[in-house]
Amino acid sequence: MNSDIFMPSQLTWATGALAGGPLIRKTTRLADLPGIFADGEAWKCGNPQKSVYDVDVLGSPVGEGALFVGVTHLRAGNVGDEFFMTRGHFHQRREQGEVYFGLRGCGLLLLQTEAGDARLEQVTAGSVHIIPPFTAHRLINTGNETLSSLAVWPSIAGHDYAALAEGFTLRIFASGEGYEVRHG
Amino acid sequence: MNSDIFMPSQLTWATGALAGGPLIRKTTRLADLPGIFADGEAWKCGNPQKSVYDVDVLGSPVGEGALFVGVTHLRAGNVGDEFFMTRGHFHQRREQGEVYFGLRGCGLLLLQTEAGDARLEQVTAGSVHIIPPFTAHRLINTGNETLSSLAVWPSIAGHDYAALAEGFTLRIFASGEGYEVRHG
Repeated sequence: MNSDIFMPSQLTWATGALAGGPLIRKTTRLADLPGIFADGEAWKCGNPQKSVYDVDVLGSPVGEGALFVGVTHLRAGNVGDEFFMTRGHFHQRREQGEVYFGLRGCGLLLLQTEAGDARLEQVTAGSVHIIPPFTAHRLINTGNETLSSLAVWPSIAGHDYAALAEGFTLRIFASGEGYEVRHG
Repeated sequence: MNSDIFMPSQLTWATGALAGGPLIRKTTRLADLPGIFADGEAWKCGNPQKSVYDVDVLGSPVGEGALFVGVTHLRAGNVGDEFFMTRGHFHQRREQGEVYFGLRGCGLLLLQTEAGDARLEQVTAGSVHIIPPFTAHRLINTGNETLSSLAVWPSIAGHDYAALAEGFTLRIFASGEGYEVRHG
């Protein structure tokens, strides 16, 4: 029995900064995203070392029922006219869901079922996104600043990128001051 | 396929207010908490209709792998010298964990294993609490204002209050300007 008071990790909501705990950062660069953007020529011409997104995950117990906490920082930018986005994935354990909370910036969460039905949710500071089981998910930054999003997901969920080899059925392109959704 | 943009629920971090979605509120009053506080006489003398805490849960899909989002608002107050707290529970599915985020106010998260080992974590705005599987959890408000905490947990976790019939092994009492932790 221990009556000491433990100081937990801290999240700064306004920036998505995590502190005070073991943190694992994974950076995904333009070079790590072949075949993701519609305009392959524009992708080749981009700086391969350009960081597209960072994911910070708190080190915590793993196992059936254990939950992970992480923050994705998706940079503002384009490949051709298409906005920067995360690779997107189904969970390897398809029945495992996830929750996203928008922290800063403006963007979209693209959800897609195994049957290919897609849906877009607006991500803003304070938005709450309950991603159901059996649903692939991708973040898209439609703004001029970093889009940061808090996520909670089951540690055993895993990632299955291969199942999305044909990609998502919607793409988001810059259009005037805003964006345009295109199918296919 | 649908290229409409869906407006998700919103969480105001500073207050814990949830909006823009189906919301279920459960209020727990003093009368609902017999046997919880150490001073049974003080409990009997309190206003039985006094709200001790409200839990707001967003309506969302239920099933293996689906996650719930909710906010607990634990009022400031005492029963005798003991601070207001939630009933606390193990999950019925013991292996299912949970995550809490402190939103406002000051308090403690009391964690306890099935073997009776207890641990206290400080809850403040921005604190992150990853509650491991097989761990009972209770919030305690040690401050002068409402303690609000965001939670994400598996929809199939369930609650098992009976397993804690003998209570938690630590109690928190007002002491001077602060608090005191007592065993037993």
